[in-house]
Amino acid sequence: MRQNKMLLPTLREVPKDAEIVSHRLLLRAGLARMFAAGMYTYLPLGLRVLRKIEHIVREEMDKSGAQEILGSILQPAELWHTTGRWDDYGPEMMKMKDRHDRDFVLGPTHEELVTTLAKQEVNSYKRLPFNIYQVATKFRDERRPRFGMLRAREFTMKDAYSFHASYESLGETYDLMHKTYTSIFTRLGLNFRPVQADAGTIGGSGRNHEFMVLADIGEDTIAVCTHCDYAANLEKAEARYAAAGVAPTEDAPAYEKLHTPEIKTIDQLVESLNVEANTVIKTLVYLADGEAVAVVLRGDHEVNELKLQKFLGARTLELASHAEIERVTGVPSGFVGPVGLKIPVVIDRDVLGVSAGVAGANERDYHFQNVVAGRDFQTERVGDLRNAVVGDLCPHCEEGTLEFYRGIEVGHIFELGTKYSDSLGATFLNQDGKAQSFIMGCYGIGISRLITAVIEQNNDEKGIIWPMAVAPYQVHVIPVKVKDEEQMRLAEQLYNRLREQGVDVLLDDRDESAGVKFKDSDLIGLPVRVTVGKKAGEGIVEFTVRKTGEAKEVSLEQAYEEIMGLVAGH
Amino acid sequence: MRQNKMLLPTLREVPKDAEIVSHRLLLRAGLARMFAAGMYTYLPLGLRVLRKIEHIVREEMDKSGAQEILGSILQPAELWHTTGRWDDYGPEMMKMKDRHDRDFVLGPTHEELVTTLAKQEVNSYKRLPFNIYQVATKFRDERRPRFGMLRAREFTMKDAYSFHASYESLGETYDLMHKTYTSIFTRLGLNFRPVQADAGTIGGSGRNHEFMVLADIGEDTIAVCTHCDYAANLEKAEARYAAAGVAPTEDAPAYEKLHTPEIKTIDQLVESLNVEANTVIKTLVYLADGEAVAVVLRGDHEVNELKLQKFLGARTLELASHAEIERVTGVPSGFVGPVGLKIPVVIDRDVLGVSAGVAGANERDYHFQNVVAGRDFQTERVGDLRNAVVGDLCPHCEEGTLEFYRGIEVGHIFELGTKYSDSLGATFLNQDGKAQSFIMGCYGIGISRLITAVIEQNNDEKGIIWPMAVAPYQVHVIPVKVKDEEQMRLAEQLYNRLREQGVDVLLDDRDESAGVKFKDSDLIGLPVRVTVGKKAGEGIVEFTVRKTGEAKEVSLEQAYEEIMGLVAGH
Repeated sequence: MRQNKMLLPTLREVPKDAEIVSHRLLLRAGLARMFAAGMYTYLPLGLRVLRKIEHIVREEMDKSGAQEILGSILQPAELWHTTGRWDDYGPEMMKMKDRHDRDFVLGPTHEELVTTLAKQEVNSYKRLPFNIYQVATKFRDERRPRFGMLRAREFTMKDAYSFHASYESLGETYDLMHKTYTSIFTRLGLNFRPVQADAGTIGGSGRNHEFMVLADIGEDTIAVCTHCDYAANLEKAEARYAAAGVAPTEDAPAYEKLHTPEIKTIDQLVESLNVEANTVIKTLVYLADGEAVAVVLRGDHEVNELKLQKFLGARTLELASHAEIERVTGVPSGFVGPVGLKIPVVIDRDVLGVSAGVAGANERDYHFQNVVAGRDFQTERVGDLRNAVVGDLCPHCEEGTLEFYRGIEVGHIFELGTKYSDSLGATFLNQDGKAQSFIMGCYGIGISRLITAVIEQNNDEKGIIWPMAVAPYQVHVIPVKVKDEEQMRLAEQLYNRLREQGVDVLLDDRDESAGVKFKDSDLIGLPVRVTVGKKAGEGIVEFTVRKTGEAKEVSLEQAYEEIMGLVAGH
Repeated sequence: MRQNKMLLPTLREVPKDAEIVSHRLLLRAGLARMFAAGMYTYLPLGLRVLRKIEHIVREEMDKSGAQEILGSILQPAELWHTTGRWDDYGPEMMKMKDRHDRDFVLGPTHEELVTTLAKQEVNSYKRLPFNIYQVATKFRDERRPRFGMLRAREFTMKDAYSFHASYESLGETYDLMHKTYTSIFTRLGLNFRPVQADAGTIGGSGRNHEFMVLADIGEDTIAVCTHCDYAANLEKAEARYAAAGVAPTEDAPAYEKLHTPEIKTIDQLVESLNVEANTVIKTLVYLADGEAVAVVLRGDHEVNELKLQKFLGARTLELASHAEIERVTGVPSGFVGPVGLKIPVVIDRDVLGVSAGVAGANERDYHFQNVVAGRDFQTERVGDLRNAVVGDLCPHCEEGTLEFYRGIEVGHIFELGTKYSDSLGATFLNQDGKAQSFIMGCYGIGISRLITAVIEQNNDEKGIIWPMAVAPYQVHVIPVKVKDEEQMRLAEQLYNRLREQGVDVLLDDRDESAGVKFKDSDLIGLPVRVTVGKKAGEGIVEFTVRKTGEAKEVSLEQAYEEIMGLVAGH
């Protein structure tokens, strides 16, 4: 492509509202523009990156035996009413009415549609298993779209759905998808981890893994073992219970009341009483299916609401407001404690290890000290109710502890089971001639979000550093002066020769200063740059690798050979 | 691809509600399914056809120098308010509100968005001209979705937009696009015509052409000259005026009243009075911008509302209801005539050639006969207000007459001018350093609709006959008995060898009867079939061309060679 008439608007200034480096570079390098929050229009350079990622995803999906389809974006509401997700999905689901006032969903995902497709079109176990996928535009009305393509409202996703006659077959496809995803993200040159995760609104009964690209700006925290390959999303991460830490309750003195006026938070307690947060026993009040329940845990720990909800078997869970706390406990927020509390209490197991703790006294402006679980309050309902923390023992091996990373979720695979086939009545005739619900898996990749992930892991202060596999063009050929005939002749010669060999080349044929051209070149970050300058007359050009900054003078022929070596296999 | 686990549900029965052959075959050959009216989900076979069409379109667009982008599907309403199309587009525009109650359009087309893009990103004449295109999902809420992908509500379109500093440059790109479209539709193997057309809701001041695929089920009528290359959509078609037909008014007897009780239509008049329709002078009443106007034309002619609207310079035009006719003329519908009529009258020029006509007498149950234009009613405002008819003189050459065809509109190109850049304030600095509105063109192709057009022109009673260029697979390899090891060995050998050469092959490895396999094969209509049957032991297979039905026994090697010859260049 020739750059002169190309729609490639680079920006020198840092766009406001772009909080993270990949978002700034997305805009500065002229990859995309936004006309409404979270809705991007791809410019030529950005679209080429999107297509290259799509291509790698398709190649690996096809290799796995999956078949590509393309579902309609608009889906009739009836399908979503049947599974209950019309209501469950919440305000993130985009909806519309057609001219006849019929309700439609702008598909955030396609379980309902593909399950209905299988129900209508596949009758026999003989046609199973199969795995269908699509690369398509999806919609999710994020409350706060941000971080470029990381949290967009209109985005490209690869979603796949597999159908099986047995759980064994599902497991095989699940493992194959795990392997396929590993191949895809490896080809994209990403530093990533597959981690155990929660199934969220997709649901499902079996295994599920998220594929996380490690990045400081990631919106997820992942816990990784220092020793084995255990890795889990924080919401799902477990810790091995160090029972050795349980306190010898008989040695503790009796609890006593302390006057703690206006001391309501753990931080204030720690400061004013000069104690460690891990000796504070804090109490939170939740409404589980509308009923109040107190959750007791160590002052330095956080409730894991997912674990708590499962522990309680509750359909809905929300933190009580200050007013609700006072109404149900009779105690103002900040002074609630487990001793003598009148509402049901559940206790995180680490509280059992606090030998003499500080806890709310259930009376305004008072706390107790020397509180001991089991002695001073009942411990009938104890479980793992907290988030894992750095240094927790690995739940899977004897030697490791957990460390934390931030991650961008780029893929998610699920063993769904029969959740959707049951609710939509999607059955096939099994080997015994009986109707049986399809056993399903589903497998997503955030395609457009991968652009953000790749940039986040590949940039420097000058701009993007594209990996060869997804670079919009592989080579940037820059004649320094376009009015110099010798320079243009040499540049055109290399440009045409490389293009004939199928190399993606961008030729900067703009009549701009060398400074502008090099700055733009660094910013858009193609892997290789060939500069045709003063030594063009001798047939000498400068060959630069963007990643290393390594530059050398070579003959045009050498430049060609080096490039062909670098692009081989991409 | 192996057919056994493929999602390729063929149907023996003819689906109800599928009115035309291409729609029936779309469903019967397992190309696509519909979950709501006019919204298709592509199954693997159909998606391959879509992708092949897209590929040809992209190749030719890229060759023309156009750059691919991808606009967001959701567009903020503000853009459409600015151009006025939020209101003008009518109920065909799909709209929605986000969670913050902001209005969005599900893009039916992208003039507003790309013009805004150019406004923001392109400042100088140095960057002009450029042409950007996208292949994307579009939405249009058709009142009556039907005919498969011909009139869908969610569909794939290629839309391109060019930006220029001069009308000369626009003209050059317009001509290039005309040539590019001709290449595309030729490569698709279609019988098509570029025809002059009206600009519709897109608007624009310059030339515009529709590309029409000739088909009996086409929703458009096109007029084509028998002698020269003149072709136009009926709404736009003109006829050379045969002034020789003007009647010698002085010879006609004076008009007189006839009692014609309950005779209200042209057909009734022709029958009861035993006259020819071309001697009847009919009068229609329209409301032009709300004002009544009578249109007088020959009984065998139809009003062309587009011509009429332009003639009147009216912003809106609609036929008056019976009640409105009676209110504004004082005459019941069916008896209105030009003689003594009190509302403004416009006259189609062919009425001047009626020597002694029959017309309404402006009195219930009466007509006049021997009415002569100019003598009996004023002819101040005369023009070409009617649709062309078969046999009309060609407006472009001296020798031809017009004949009619039905056509499917698959492409439309426009010289827009500054309609959108003016209303959106999209300017650049020209060579004189002055702000000037971009001069624009736009160019559409109905990608998914082309599937319907191709099938409509390529089928027989057994099924589809895919042209090689867009066939989902090029070759169908059918081992008659999959349990026969020799047959499967030979079939697999050919299958693998062809795939290695990049040929798209479908292997029917289903354990089904020969009858079922052949019926399905004819139905899905791949260009070449290789049947591996009883003579597999001798290395002999049957080679069949779907289009001709020609079948011959050849060696496996010969079959391979024949195929490689047929697929060359595709």
